[in-house]
Amino acid sequence: MMSQVEEFNAYREKMNSKLLKDNNKIIKRIFNLDTNAFMAGVLDVKTKELLGLVASTVLRCDDCVKYHLETCFKEGVSKEEVMESLSIATLVGGTIVIPHLRRAYEFWEELEAQ
Amino acid sequence: MMSQVEEFNAYREKMNSKLLKDNNKIIKRIFNLDTNAFMAGVLDVKTKELLGLVASTVLRCDDCVKYHLETCFKEGVSKEEVMESLSIATLVGGTIVIPHLRRAYEFWEELEAQ
Amino acid sequence: MMSQVEEFNAYREKMNSKLLKDNNKIIKRIFNLDTNAFMAGVLDVKTKELLGLVASTVLRCDDCVKYHLETCFKEGVSKEEVMESLSIATLVGGTIVIPHLRRAYEFWEELEAQ
Amino acid sequence: MMSQVEEFNAYREKMNSKLLKDNNKIIKRIFNLDTNAFMAGVLDVKTKELLGLVASTVLRCDDCVKYHLETCFKEGVSKEEVMESLSIATLVGGTIVIPHLRRAYEFWEELEAQ
Amino acid sequence: MMSQVEEFNAYREKMNSKLLKDNNKIIKRIFNLDTNAFMAGVLDVKTKELLGLVASTVLRCDDCVKYHLETCFKEGVSKEEVMESLSIATLVGGTIVIPHLRRAYEFWEELEAQ
Amino acid sequence: MMSQVEEFNAYREKMNSKLLKDNNKIIKRIFNLDTNAFMAGVLDVKTKELLGLVASTVLRCDDCVKYHLETCFKEGVSKEEVMESLSIATLVGGTIVIPHLRRAYEFWEELEAQ
Repeated sequence: MMSQVEEFNAYREKMNSKLLKDNNKIIKRIFNLDTNAFMAGVLDVKTKELLGLVASTVLRCDDCVKYHLETCFKEGVSKEEVMESLSIATLVGGTIVIPHLRRAYEFWEELEAQ
Repeated sequence: MMSQVEEFNAYREKMNSKLLKDNNKIIKRIFNLDTNAFMAGVLDVKTKELLGLVASTVLRCDDCVKYHLETCFKEGVSKEEVMESLSIATLVGGTIVIPHLRRAYEFWEELEAQ
Repeated sequence: MMSQVEEFNAYREKMNSKLLKDNNKIIKRIFNLDTNAFMAGVLDVKTKELLGLVASTVLRCDDCVKYHLETCFKEGVSKEEVMESLSIATLVGGTIVIPHLRRAYEFWEELEAQ
Repeated sequence: MMSQVEEFNAYREKMNSKLLKDNNKIIKRIFNLDTNAFMAGVLDVKTKELLGLVASTVLRCDDCVKYHLETCFKEGVSKEEVMESLSIATLVGGTIVIPHLRRAYEFWEELEAQ
Repeated sequence: MMSQVEEFNAYREKMNSKLLKDNNKIIKRIFNLDTNAFMAGVLDVKTKELLGLVASTVLRCDDCVKYHLETCFKEGVSKEEVMESLSIATLVGGTIVIPHLRRAYEFWEELEAQ
Repeated sequence: MMSQVEEFNAYREKMNSKLLKDNNKIIKRIFNLDTNAFMAGVLDVKTKELLGLVASTVLRCDDCVKYHLETCFKEGVSKEEVMESLSIATLVGGTIVIPHLRRAYEFWEELEAQ
């Protein structure tokens, strides 16, 4: 049985690959920009991933949150740093963020459990 | 087999308990504020719950809607009062609210069926 | 010199009148629904206006907030009731609601000053 | 076993029927307006459906996106036209639209597979 | 004295030029994508501009609405077509769109008056 | 004549002081939480301010953006770091963020000019 993390990645990769093969130039270039924007610049990758995480959380996009949580995890961001970022997102975005916070917390636990 | 209401509450309680044990002060205090804000003041609990319901509906947060529907139900708010509140939310928030209205209606039916 | 309240109402009435004369049926009927939705039903006008106020505040629409503040004022809603409703909106919608809260407070003061 | 398209339509019809029987006038009239707004006017049905699709996509309402995708499909809108519309929605609405784009693409494939 | 249209364009051009000179690659490429996405493809420019207008309206971005209104005007889109598109946006996005509808209508009048 | 920065701060301080004197406990505690959330923790103040800036930008709150820009400026964040953060916000939030980007850029110039 697939974990939530595996299921998320499998679906994401399958559909991204279809979208890119579909050959719509605008969509391909947005995907390309997305890769570039989170590369190290004057800000390091870790900081940028936390920015992506907070942006995704206040905009309440569970899949975007999961994606940035996984990248944060791979970059060695600590749970405390993630939680501090998510607490800012919850304060700025309000209590409607809380259901997404619950799902983010569960996803992080699965990342740690792997 | 768990009803939708039981499933919602079980997950919500499990994850809230983890979030509170995690000991991030900001998150704990937001949870605490949430409890306080909906207590009787110059407005009674029932009115406040309807305010919470409408805020959750226009912001299109299904879990927040479910939470306030359940509290409304326990406070003795009638189905007609809930529907009148949801109709205002749908008008203010637009037809994109309708899928959430469908799920809210189904959840209310389950609350009544228990 | 016009007060903020007078200026808001003058512009709103001028443009609403143009929109209704323009004779787009969908827009005319949405305006008509808006009038109907806030009439007394199983919920009284005052409660409905507070619902409209909170919906407008979490969706961060200054003009909608002003409109409902003025109707609340005319319906005899007290400042404490307005503030309690706005505090729920700020908690649910997050700190990004605060700039709108500042403008709402200023508008209420002008309503009282008239 | 039901396809995603059949499941979506079955639930949508069941709940819409309950909502309309519930007899809340505002909700009934919003449903009625929704039917009217997408009928041919100075703009043809196909253009209006693409407008509805883009509005639903930038507002990130999966069920609304599915509904307009199905109507587009029935109206003979081509996949290229849908993708061009969705690419505009993704650019205007940002990368948080991408998870909805993945689900929209999958739903369109199911429409074509039927 | 500058008209609202001239003022909008002057500020927009001044600041866009500064943003592009600032040489942030991501921002430059987003601006570039924006130009490309609205060029004729399988959909014509007029349809794409209406898609951009509706996306901007439901997301309640006055400046984006103004921009697409002006391009629609230059492309020869009729007032009736614009109003039909805006009526769909108001229905989908709800009555909180109305203040933006008022400002859009005023801006269109200024475009016609020039 | 007041600069944009001075005007923003004067209005913000005048209204915040009124809101706090009004003595609504929930609002007072949200203000208090806001101060706490951006203090140094496992993340430093600078990183937190960039998180606040990005959250404010994708949620398209000009006043919140201005507030965090000013704090970033005082904390010694460089223009390049601000622009890199804003570019992520524009990519995640889409081209509807661009009008806010223009105003943010102008405000930063005024901060530097002081």
